[in-house]
Amino acid sequence: MLYAEDLAVGQRFQFGSYVISEEEILRFARQYDPVFIHTDKEAAAKGPFNGLIASGFNTLAIYQRLIVEAVWTQVAGIVGRSFEVRLFRPVRPDTRITGHCEIQSITLRPERRDGVAIFKSELTDESGQTILTLVLDSLIHARPKP
Amino acid sequence: MLYAEDLAVGQRFQFGSYVISEEEILRFARQYDPVFIHTDKEAAAKGPFNGLIASGFNTLAIYQRLIVEAVWTQVAGIVGRSFEVRLFRPVRPDTRITGHCEIQSITLRPERRDGVAIFKSELTDESGQTILTLVLDSLIHARPKP
Repeated sequence: MLYAEDLAVGQRFQFGSYVISEEEILRFARQYDPVFIHTDKEAAAKGPFNGLIASGFNTLAIYQRLIVEAVWTQVAGIVGRSFEVRLFRPVRPDTRITGHCEIQSITLRPERRDGVAIFKSELTDESGQTILTLVLDSLIHARPKP
Repeated sequence: MLYAEDLAVGQRFQFGSYVISEEEILRFARQYDPVFIHTDKEAAAKGPFNGLIASGFNTLAIYQRLIVEAVWTQVAGIVGRSFEVRLFRPVRPDTRITGHCEIQSITLRPERRDGVAIFKSELTDESGQTILTLVLDSLIHARPKP
């Protein structure tokens, strides 16, 4: 396990990948983001994006899946406090999403036995183009005293 | 339909409500946020929150459902560009989530036929306590020329 003391600015975690299907886009959006560009293939084809695109919140949920597998299985996180998301380009069915994150800052708080870590993540598509970036402010456990 | 010219600072939109079930919490987290506090009721009972809590990304998806129904069915949105989320308290099964949003600023861009609107949203539980806040930077269509 990696604790707050084990993290350093510039440390990078590579994400795995996740292919988003048309069926997932439709299912997610019908429940959480019922707007025609996400829920109706035929109407979306005539819409502003010339086809069905994923809800940004679907993409964000996939970001969480990727960062859980790449980071939170090995870093002793306590909780995410806040995050900022920027959306760069639409995600279409069958896109293979991947990405990475990097530690932007780490501040140890010995009196609280934790550290404040800022992670900057980037999701990209197969051609390496940025889909979204996310800056997360999170608390990480300090190494337990022996 | 409300266009950029129809929006004003302080304008408020009341959200409906959404009850999150234990089954939804488990299903969402198994796919997108597979951490035991969200996916394993028994382990979560002995964990830091003394019980199962929803993934923050599940709550965020519910925010989107509520703001789609309250705002995006009547405001001529183009796209959300970025947003910042703060998480205040965990959401447990059967919580009835509601909230509202308010326009913090609106900047008309006549040369682009749109406006930049900042919406600040707050989700609350039955007792009125804040679950999360979200500040959204979005583009809104200007009123079409007659």
